[in-house]
Amino acid sequence: MSILVVGSVAYDTVKTPAGTREDALGGSATFFSVSGSYFAPVSVVAVVGEDFKDGDVELLKDHGVDVSGLDRRPGKTFRWSGVYGAEDVNTRDTLDTQLNVFADFAPELSPEQRKSPYLFLANIAPELQMSVLEQMDERPKLVALDSMALWIDISHEALERIVRKVDVLFLDETEVRTFTKRSNLVEAARAIMAMGPSTVVAKRGDHGVLLFHGDSIFSAPAFPLDRVIDPTGAGDSFAGGFMGYLAATGDLSAEGFKLAAMTGSVMGSFQVESFSLERTASLTNDEIEARFRALSDLTKFTPLEDNESLPFRGAAHA
Amino acid sequence: MSILVVGSVAYDTVKTPAGTREDALGGSATFFSVSGSYFAPVSVVAVVGEDFKDGDVELLKDHGVDVSGLDRRPGKTFRWSGVYGAEDVNTRDTLDTQLNVFADFAPELSPEQRKSPYLFLANIAPELQMSVLEQMDERPKLVALDSMALWIDISHEALERIVRKVDVLFLDETEVRTFTKRSNLVEAARAIMAMGPSTVVAKRGDHGVLLFHGDSIFSAPAFPLDRVIDPTGAGDSFAGGFMGYLAATGDLSAEGFKLAAMTGSVMGSFQVESFSLERTASLTNDEIEARFRALSDLTKFTPLEDNESLPFRGAAHA
Repeated sequence: MSILVVGSVAYDTVKTPAGTREDALGGSATFFSVSGSYFAPVSVVAVVGEDFKDGDVELLKDHGVDVSGLDRRPGKTFRWSGVYGAEDVNTRDTLDTQLNVFADFAPELSPEQRKSPYLFLANIAPELQMSVLEQMDERPKLVALDSMALWIDISHEALERIVRKVDVLFLDETEVRTFTKRSNLVEAARAIMAMGPSTVVAKRGDHGVLLFHGDSIFSAPAFPLDRVIDPTGAGDSFAGGFMGYLAATGDLSAEGFKLAAMTGSVMGSFQVESFSLERTASLTNDEIEARFRALSDLTKFTPLEDNESLPFRGAAHA
Repeated sequence: MSILVVGSVAYDTVKTPAGTREDALGGSATFFSVSGSYFAPVSVVAVVGEDFKDGDVELLKDHGVDVSGLDRRPGKTFRWSGVYGAEDVNTRDTLDTQLNVFADFAPELSPEQRKSPYLFLANIAPELQMSVLEQMDERPKLVALDSMALWIDISHEALERIVRKVDVLFLDETEVRTFTKRSNLVEAARAIMAMGPSTVVAKRGDHGVLLFHGDSIFSAPAFPLDRVIDPTGAGDSFAGGFMGYLAATGDLSAEGFKLAAMTGSVMGSFQVESFSLERTASLTNDEIEARFRALSDLTKFTPLEDNESLPFRGAAHA
């Protein structure tokens, strides 16, 4: 089944320990769409400026992404610029944000988009996320939402309102804590689930994610890479793989969410291997599947059988 | 088989978001010994002052720890004082260190200790670690070493010399990077393995560990706790469970190391649930085994069968 994503399409200028790239295709909706497209049809709603390159529209089309909701407006495309830490690629500083045409973004869904069974509300203002959800003809089968520290700080109430209406919340683990004002992650995730979402994905950068779903917690590792080029878009590519898996299988069981998290981690790992979409946009199914198996091996060991015991020294502590 | 540990026995004063504890039993050798004692006989070599409490000696004895190498000297026991971040329990600041009798610590092994098949060189000066290794009658079956940023900074050469002689290196992932001057963790771990160790355990606080062993990488998660009281000693308790598993089974295969990492993670998770050794010293085998199974469940999912494929959208990208 198909996925609708509403978010940003941008040109990013990034500096990482591996190099610099100027005005490279980026934006949450872009990363998500291309990543998810390997698994399910994706329809994108976003706004771009007059400077948006035809080749970048083609890239999305080549991945079967429905770009009928890509609104081209007078003005320039959204620009973001950031720099990543040399010591810790999980930290970044935003150098500059030029909203341009994104400043007046007011997403409008087509009749067909209003029927989408899977909806991803990428990281935009919570009020816009709400307006999208309210345009849906009926409640989608699954609604997922991403946000960030900015909205937690300046739009906490609006963010709370939309969080109460979604099924899956993607946040960095620090954001899970600040959003709920709880320092313990398990407690914080439970507090979010008490608000409504069945599922919380606490992202931990290159340490993987913790997936809270119902009573269960699942730890999906990140794939250890010997070369990280640019972490931009890793979270959105993760979400693309995650939602792509669920939309492709329709399996919303606890097991389905675990496999979705593993698929998301695979797609996030490819995203950081290049600037922009160079790697993510040129994958083969075989490459994706091989990495899925390698990621699975990372946590595989021979578990204790039911009748087996750990090698305790004696009964002294029994 | 038995484990010899050489390290510190201390009285710690810690402040965490959960509270404060003054002059509580601590020290790397203490945490390691009690944790490891659930799996294998442990013999400790350390120095304490005249103020060291008989009850604390008894606690070690009650866990079957051989304390014949616990040297009582004139003066006061080593004191450490630290405070943990309210936002992130993985960060801590040392407030005060009083070496006291530890300043002149010159470990001397008994004839029996020189024959120990498993040796853990806890976090002390690399020169002392070397002097211990040189006292061994024959090369132990397995030598593991822990260190910290201080020695990387002020005794880099001495640390390198001893690292070249051990089998297993435990370090925080940041320390793995700074020790090797490589920002990529996979590269950094490989650089250490090229120096000699077969195994590198990169510790990631409450995100678990990455175990590098030969060509394989294993991700052991941390057990998500809804209440963390005091992270002090988590790394040493991890090492105790890790070495305890290996000494109890003698299984030094890749699979053995994975199970050792899981056992270590279990013991580390108990350590942070209380101040000092309150929790770690009062565990039952049943509690340990139950948590081992719960930790195993954390990464368990239905893997792809050999003849199975991920749910790709189509052959477009194949």
